Amino acid sequence: MGSPMHRVSLGDHWSWQVHPDIDSERHSPSFSVERLTNILDGGLPNTVLRRKVESIIQSDPVFNLKKLYFMTREELYEDAIQKRFHLEKLAWSLGWSEDGPERIYANRVLDGNVNLSLHGVAMNAIRSLGSDEQIAKWGQLCKNFQIITTYAQTELGHGTYLQGLETEATYDEARQELVIHSPTMTSTKWWPGDLGWSVTHAVVLAQLTCLGVRHGMHAFIVPIRSLEDHTPLPGITVGDIGPKMGLEHIDNGFLQLNHVRVPRENMLSRFAEVLPDGTYQRLGTPQSNYLGMLVTRVQLLCKGILPSLQKACIIATRYSVIRHQSRLRPSDPEAKILEYQTQQQKLLPQLAVSYAFHFTATSLSEFFHSSYSAILKRDFSLLPELHALSTGMKATFADFCAQGAEICRRACGGHGYSKLSGLPTLVARATASCTYEGENTVLYLQVARFLMKSYLQAQASPGATPQKPLPQSVMYIATQRPARCSAQTAADFRCPDVYTTAWAYVSTRLIRDAAHRTQTLMKSGVDQHDAWNQTTVIHLQAAKAHCYFITVKNFKEAVEKLDKEPEIQRVLQRLCDLYALHGVLTNSGDFLHDGFLSGAQVDMAREAFLDLLPLIRKDAILLTDAFDFSDHCLNSALGCYDGHVYERLFEWAQKYPANTQENPAYKKYIRPLMLGWRHKM
Amino acid sequence: MGSPMHRVSLGDHWSWQVHPDIDSERHSPSFSVERLTNILDGGLPNTVLRRKVESIIQSDPVFNLKKLYFMTREELYEDAIQKRFHLEKLAWSLGWSEDGPERIYANRVLDGNVNLSLHGVAMNAIRSLGSDEQIAKWGQLCKNFQIITTYAQTELGHGTYLQGLETEATYDEARQELVIHSPTMTSTKWWPGDLGWSVTHAVVLAQLTCLGVRHGMHAFIVPIRSLEDHTPLPGITVGDIGPKMGLEHIDNGFLQLNHVRVPRENMLSRFAEVLPDGTYQRLGTPQSNYLGMLVTRVQLLCKGILPSLQKACIIATRYSVIRHQSRLRPSDPEAKILEYQTQQQKLLPQLAVSYAFHFTATSLSEFFHSSYSAILKRDFSLLPELHALSTGMKATFADFCAQGAEICRRACGGHGYSKLSGLPTLVARATASCTYEGENTVLYLQVARFLMKSYLQAQASPGATPQKPLPQSVMYIATQRPARCSAQTAADFRCPDVYTTAWAYVSTRLIRDAAHRTQTLMKSGVDQHDAWNQTTVIHLQAAKAHCYFITVKNFKEAVEKLDKEPEIQRVLQRLCDLYALHGVLTNSGDFLHDGFLSGAQVDMAREAFLDLLPLIRKDAILLTDAFDFSDHCLNSALGCYDGHVYERLFEWAQKYPANTQENPAYKKYIRPLMLGWRHKM
Ligand SMILES: Cc1cc2nc3c(=O)[nH]c(=O)nc-3n(C[C@H](O)[C@H](O)[C@H](O)COP(=O)(O)OP(=O)(O)OC[C@H]3O[C@@H](n4cnc5c(N)ncnc54)[C@H](O)[C@@H]3O)c2cc1C
Ligand SMILES: Cc1cc2nc3c(=O)[nH]c(=O)nc-3n(C[C@H](O)[C@H](O)[C@H](O)COP(=O)(O)OP(=O)(O)OC[C@H]3O[C@@H](n4cnc5c(N)ncnc54)[C@H](O)[C@@H]3O)c2cc1C
Repeated sequence: MGSPMHRVSLGDHWSWQVHPDIDSERHSPSFSVERLTNILDGGLPNTVLRRKVESIIQSDPVFNLKKLYFMTREELYEDAIQKRFHLEKLAWSLGWSEDGPERIYANRVLDGNVNLSLHGVAMNAIRSLGSDEQIAKWGQLCKNFQIITTYAQTELGHGTYLQGLETEATYDEARQELVIHSPTMTSTKWWPGDLGWSVTHAVVLAQLTCLGVRHGMHAFIVPIRSLEDHTPLPGITVGDIGPKMGLEHIDNGFLQLNHVRVPRENMLSRFAEVLPDGTYQRLGTPQSNYLGMLVTRVQLLCKGILPSLQKACIIATRYSVIRHQSRLRPSDPEAKILEYQTQQQKLLPQLAVSYAFHFTATSLSEFFHSSYSAILKRDFSLLPELHALSTGMKATFADFCAQGAEICRRACGGHGYSKLSGLPTLVARATASCTYEGENTVLYLQVARFLMKSYLQAQASPGATPQKPLPQSVMYIATQRPARCSAQTAADFRCPDVYTTAWAYVSTRLIRDAAHRTQTLMKSGVDQHDAWNQTTVIHLQAAKAHCYFITVKNFKEAVEKLDKEPEIQRVLQRLCDLYALHGVLTNSGDFLHDGFLSGAQVDMAREAFLDLLPLIRKDAILLTDAFDFSDHCLNSALGCYDGHVYERLFEWAQKYPANTQENPAYKKYIRPLMLGWRHKM
Repeated sequence: MGSPMHRVSLGDHWSWQVHPDIDSERHSPSFSVERLTNILDGGLPNTVLRRKVESIIQSDPVFNLKKLYFMTREELYEDAIQKRFHLEKLAWSLGWSEDGPERIYANRVLDGNVNLSLHGVAMNAIRSLGSDEQIAKWGQLCKNFQIITTYAQTELGHGTYLQGLETEATYDEARQELVIHSPTMTSTKWWPGDLGWSVTHAVVLAQLTCLGVRHGMHAFIVPIRSLEDHTPLPGITVGDIGPKMGLEHIDNGFLQLNHVRVPRENMLSRFAEVLPDGTYQRLGTPQSNYLGMLVTRVQLLCKGILPSLQKACIIATRYSVIRHQSRLRPSDPEAKILEYQTQQQKLLPQLAVSYAFHFTATSLSEFFHSSYSAILKRDFSLLPELHALSTGMKATFADFCAQGAEICRRACGGHGYSKLSGLPTLVARATASCTYEGENTVLYLQVARFLMKSYLQAQASPGATPQKPLPQSVMYIATQRPARCSAQTAADFRCPDVYTTAWAYVSTRLIRDAAHRTQTLMKSGVDQHDAWNQTTVIHLQAAKAHCYFITVKNFKEAVEKLDKEPEIQRVLQRLCDLYALHGVLTNSGDFLHDGFLSGAQVDMAREAFLDLLPLIRKDAILLTDAFDFSDHCLNSALGCYDGHVYERLFEWAQKYPANTQENPAYKKYIRPLMLGWRHKM
């Protein structure tokens, strides 16, 4: 495996020597970083394989990321297509299977800078919504890249509310074809990734009508570009939607369909089918059509959203032990900024979130795998819970990762605003995830509805076991708990049972209060829909508390299982404590509200929190090292393993092509401005 | 003045008709929008003049902003230089004076898309730090653009801690020259705006040494580029620092000085002077050198930071009455998203912040003008308070505007991620202001020190009037107040005295607690500097509460003064209530902590808050219209006055040049990928 230095570094000339300020952080570690990395990877063999893949990718100049900073949007696009092409070639030559771990590791180190990723999302949709024959046919075409696809759901006028999609799919029984059509400007498909310039086919979500009857949203495979020369097919208007906040390399596109005809067989028909004569046959629930999104959402958590925060943490923490600014004591030399309590308060909770979410995602993933196969076999009993959990976690991950990445960015002061730090890119990505695959507020409100329903179900049979057992993840709301927290010292707040119980208590109270408020309004004569809308702010708060509870519980349980690794368990325990307490302090009003915590107890929780900061600070570099992201993949002048921050920032800026080109604005404007044109006017 | 439509619109073909969904929002207004605009402008004549300037700017194609979305960084730079050149020409031909209101209004409508703005910051420095002769000489050169300047303070290794700046200015008494030198790589000046490619001179902050004695940081005027051909002068290495998160049109630069010699007279010497023989003479306090920054900071609040939030509010609110998504009731048509309580909760507090900060900035500005002239005459008695106030307000404005602009952006769902919405640009600007001109945490901690000092001063003479009266803005911490809030109903929470008192109470308590904790640590034997560092998280919280109190108080007083405008007063009163209560609810833990509010009272405050939302929602469009930002200046496909959102989004995307160019990636990568290169390998 070699020295970590050799493994992770960029291999430029600074890498030969680690900066003493970061080197000292790695001396006499209290736990084995390597072992923690193995745990995060899910075992040593995974670590070994991952590193093998990384070294293959990193040794290939096509996969270099550094030059990205100076590219235009069009160049970024071409580069990301090239990388994908090259990756496919490589994968094929090395025999990496489509879903194999090597592909996952390759994507991890390429940090999302490859295009055609909607091809995978569309394949998820085909595999969850397609019949077996369709999966065989289209799956194969996709796999071989004989066609390239995207998932085209969102329209100019509708994203969240899928029932409102306007694209029409009308069955023409005479020709046994479906006519896909955009009847209005607002029905233009808008946003699908890779659609603008790249794909040949789209999985188009549209409202099905057969024999004059509407049957709601279904998915259809629609060819949109010629397989010969890539020009748009007849009836297709397609292009890129223009510049974005981030993800500039992706050609998110628009698509208008003018009575485009596809065979009847192009409707994905695992859960619903149109017979040749136009008869509509439903085989699943109306929710089935969301399944494709569910799969994608679960994959997103670990691979799409969380790495942004983890990387931001690594960069900001490493920078914070290299940067010295101000003095703690007038007689001292300038301190590493990580010594400042406020800096610790910014960064260390983000580190805790990074770990909390890792373990939460692992646990959700397990639940997903155990329930999804049943769902594909049309046993939908676990679908509502899986939906609520994945929805809640998507919203929570996105919220906290976006906020956390921005906190890390700002914690780097001015240099965090430079793209060369890598941080602006991470922030722009994390923040996108608050919107795509379901707008966060909307997702939280779906969780809230599930919670309200569960609460009412629990109420229906108070004391006794409810007739239908509550879903596992909300069982806690039916548990009786003391109305006061038992903690009497700051140390008590570092007891996992104390804070897990506190979170369970508060979440339950908020769910109950929200439900009661809705019911009170209804009893006072307000119609149920108005009553819901007038209490959504409260329900939102309850849903967020519930999600936080889930993450605390998952983190706690994951740490408990590490009893064979006492050193690692100890350090992760601290992070778990910090995570739970940070949440308590940020939401202290919810805990104080009915006296569950007293003011004095909140002070104790804060004391426990503040005491944890310097303890975790000692291990901070090690804890970020353990994520084992290489310099190549961080692509940050501030975040390199060796700590040579200023040298890189300086050198990378020197490489900016515009610095060596002539400045046309000088002759055109600056010189005339200075030469006193005034007098000549 | 014509119809507002005519005045604010882009004048494209959609503008002929206002979308009925936004038109209806403007029917039967409960107050005069025009009158409110006049109030915001500081009087009708200002409105008239502003609109005159805007119409001049907007009718000139050079000042068009729309094409910016499709430009590269280099093109953006050139465009912003061109705009500045053109603006100077225009100003000269129309006789607009340098500091006159026309310039301010022109900058407002140009939305920061003009370069050479550091020229103004450098001039602020020259005027506050220069002697009268220096002001006469350099001020004139600057005014005529015979030289172009920047303010070069930050270095690669230091920004916050100015004592740590490494750039050296060593007096050579033999030649009566100052030798300006960058001794290390980290001493490279890094970040100054316009430095990269544009300026000829820099006001360089450096450590002065005369006769072998160091005298700390002073400001020096250093020529860096040839006035003949703009090439860097001998000893100068200069360039652009590379791509950034935003503000891409600005050439923030780096600068290395290799023993560059300037005359003794180039040291700005209002507050300190080097005599020909090398004798150092101090004429002000050590703080005097920060004066230039103070002036800039006060200007920033109103002109630099706040407009980003105001514009984001306008865009998101207008979009939210056009966008329909989901149904409130299954039988209803889809609702405007502004009808959703959660959407109101996102946007309306931002509207309240926009107004609160407007009035706060006005009041700070008045205090600045009344105290600054005294300071220039070397009466420094008000400097600490002015410093604390401007610092606290800079941090608060930047924090809330950055957060608020991002909330507005996300509230637009997917389209908020498109740059064509205008929102990503606003967010990237607002977030920059959290760092430049002083990193926010560092600024809050300066306020905290001021508060702690004030608190100890108040304690020193309990009961009696303190020997030295407390500064005006912190006088409230010496007032005795009941330990319980008197409110008994939700309605009571809409009483300005109730919430202003609540904020004063909580801020005082937090300041006291923070001070006590520091003192307790010191009494327990912890050294004072460690004690400070170990309580900074708590002090930070106190400083934020104090700043919030200041804004609530300012807003409340401004509304009180509007008693001659009852309709406007009523609607602004609601915003003021919402502003104060939003803060209470977000920080409810601080109010519940010692029982100042009970849980039941927090519920009342929430009820009051939620009740306000639909009231303010009714006026939301009018309240955003009143800011009177034109479509030209908003430059947003989502935010136009007429509400034709989708038409513009669609058309603007069509104008994306890359959509009509060939896609080189197709032949190079996509086609080979599809053509089964596998089989040929
Ligand atoms: C980077 C990016 C990539 C994307 N990629 C794809 C893709 O590949 N394929 C694809 O099909 N789509 C894609 N999208 C679109 C994305 O899925 C949608 O933008 C997203 O689902 C949000 O929907 P919306 O834009 O309609 O938001 P809206 O629903 O319009 O949200 C606007 C506001 O309205 C509020 N709101 C809406 N409904 C309600 C309600 N019922 N109650 C309360 N509040 C409500 C929201 O909370 C939000 O504040 C992408 C978007 C982005 C930004
Ligand atoms: C867009 C932009 C434009 C700029 N324009 C100019 C310009 O024109 N001219 C110019 O001279 N400069 C300019 N700057 C530089 C800017 O002024 C500095 O970046 C800013 O003052 C912050 O300083 P820093 O970068 O050293 O941050 P740091 O101080 O290094 O901040 C990093 C972290 O350390 C923490 N920290 C630092 N000291 C302490 C302490 N004592 N206690 C607790 N925490 C601490 C901070 O809170 C922060 O979290 C610009 C910067 C930007 C982003």
